Amino acid sequence: MSQQITLYSAKICPFAHRAEIALAEAKAPFTRYEIDLSNKPQWYAPKVNAASKVPAMTYGGPAVPADQPSPESTKLAESLVLVEFVGDLFPSSGIVPADPVKRAQARFFIEGVSSKLLPAYFALQMKGAPPADFYAALEYLQALLPRAEEGEGAFAVDEYSMADIAITPFLARARMSFDNDLGAWEKGEGPKMWETVTSGRFARLAKYIDDLFARESFKATWDEEYVLTGFKKHFAELRK
Amino acid sequence: MSQQITLYSAKICPFAHRAEIALAEAKAPFTRYEIDLSNKPQWYAPKVNAASKVPAMTYGGPAVPADQPSPESTKLAESLVLVEFVGDLFPSSGIVPADPVKRAQARFFIEGVSSKLLPAYFALQMKGAPPADFYAALEYLQALLPRAEEGEGAFAVDEYSMADIAITPFLARARMSFDNDLGAWEKGEGPKMWETVTSGRFARLAKYIDDLFARESFKATWDEEYVLTGFKKHFAELRK
Repeated sequence: MSQQITLYSAKICPFAHRAEIALAEAKAPFTRYEIDLSNKPQWYAPKVNAASKVPAMTYGGPAVPADQPSPESTKLAESLVLVEFVGDLFPSSGIVPADPVKRAQARFFIEGVSSKLLPAYFALQMKGAPPADFYAALEYLQALLPRAEEGEGAFAVDEYSMADIAITPFLARARMSFDNDLGAWEKGEGPKMWETVTSGRFARLAKYIDDLFARESFKATWDEEYVLTGFKKHFAELRK
Repeated sequence: MSQQITLYSAKICPFAHRAEIALAEAKAPFTRYEIDLSNKPQWYAPKVNAASKVPAMTYGGPAVPADQPSPESTKLAESLVLVEFVGDLFPSSGIVPADPVKRAQARFFIEGVSSKLLPAYFALQMKGAPPADFYAALEYLQALLPRAEEGEGAFAVDEYSMADIAITPFLARARMSFDNDLGAWEKGEGPKMWETVTSGRFARLAKYIDDLFARESFKATWDEEYVLTGFKKHFAELRK
């Protein structure tokens, strides 16, 4: 593992956050470059990611400053691609489970996050959709979780893996947004909805969320104050 | 590799076809069970796949008839999950490339198939959307292909992989549907559109499609006469 890794990221972005958690889990040496999403550098799309999104990564190639990417490095993008790539580079991280069945189960869990949870969450927060789909998606994912034991071993496929990395940044932003009532829902509903998804029929999910948020790789990559400031500004602009 | 594999599939379904190609590439011994999608067996959802979709797989457990699935086998679903699972069980198949960079590139190609090509293709064929998005998606994917050499090495990440498996069933059904003018487009437009995507600016794509359709694993798993009969029936019913 002597090839350089540069991650182009943005603290506010949940997709980019996935790649940051993966690198933290792998204890991978890397260079981090913050992209201002409201004012992207001109070189970013042509030299790093044609889709102009974060996260993106350069891998290998000569040693260059992050804002002068080399044409010789490999360019990679898409958050889930990057998470698995980091897992493949650092197999002992456990990001990609060693057992093929666990791998498949982790990917199946991620498919549920992508196709059920994220559309429902975005519709609820950005468009004021009723919370029923969001609750249903969380119920679906909760049912996939193994029974919780005390202490370790309570993650999506028992050991912490890419499945947990895929969902964590969204749950963190959901918790923060609900607590601070930052969403297109009726004023005051945010905290009540978070209470709903972390108690009663969601007891197993609540334990899972606690375990996710206690993970060192999450705590080291989550700057709540910074993200909250950004979200407040974003929603204030939306309301104008 | 002594664990049993049973695949629940349907010849007509492009998602299920992915799993069949993967198993053929891996030369994996398996039991195949055809699910009649218009009349699914009552045991299928409770005992194999709660989502009641194909493809699904049982892995391991005791030797049982396919229509009497054991509670002891592992149940897996989602076409791309199954393709990677087969690749993980049979690493020498090359389905999952050995090189982490190639793996990442294959997954990035698949992400383009999932998020760009499939929505555009379904909108065109089922809802009569204009073909512009379909052409744009194919142009995007074509640009990801390596330069074509004579003979081998012309697939999505050079060697044949999960990326090629992910797209092949849809291109096969597109070619058949366009040729036979089976879609929600204006009568007579189908053959013209297929001509468009296999010539001129799509020359590289045309070569790629030829290579995909020449692959033994595709030919062994594609029953065009059967699928065509099904599609004709389906579109005749739609038009009523």
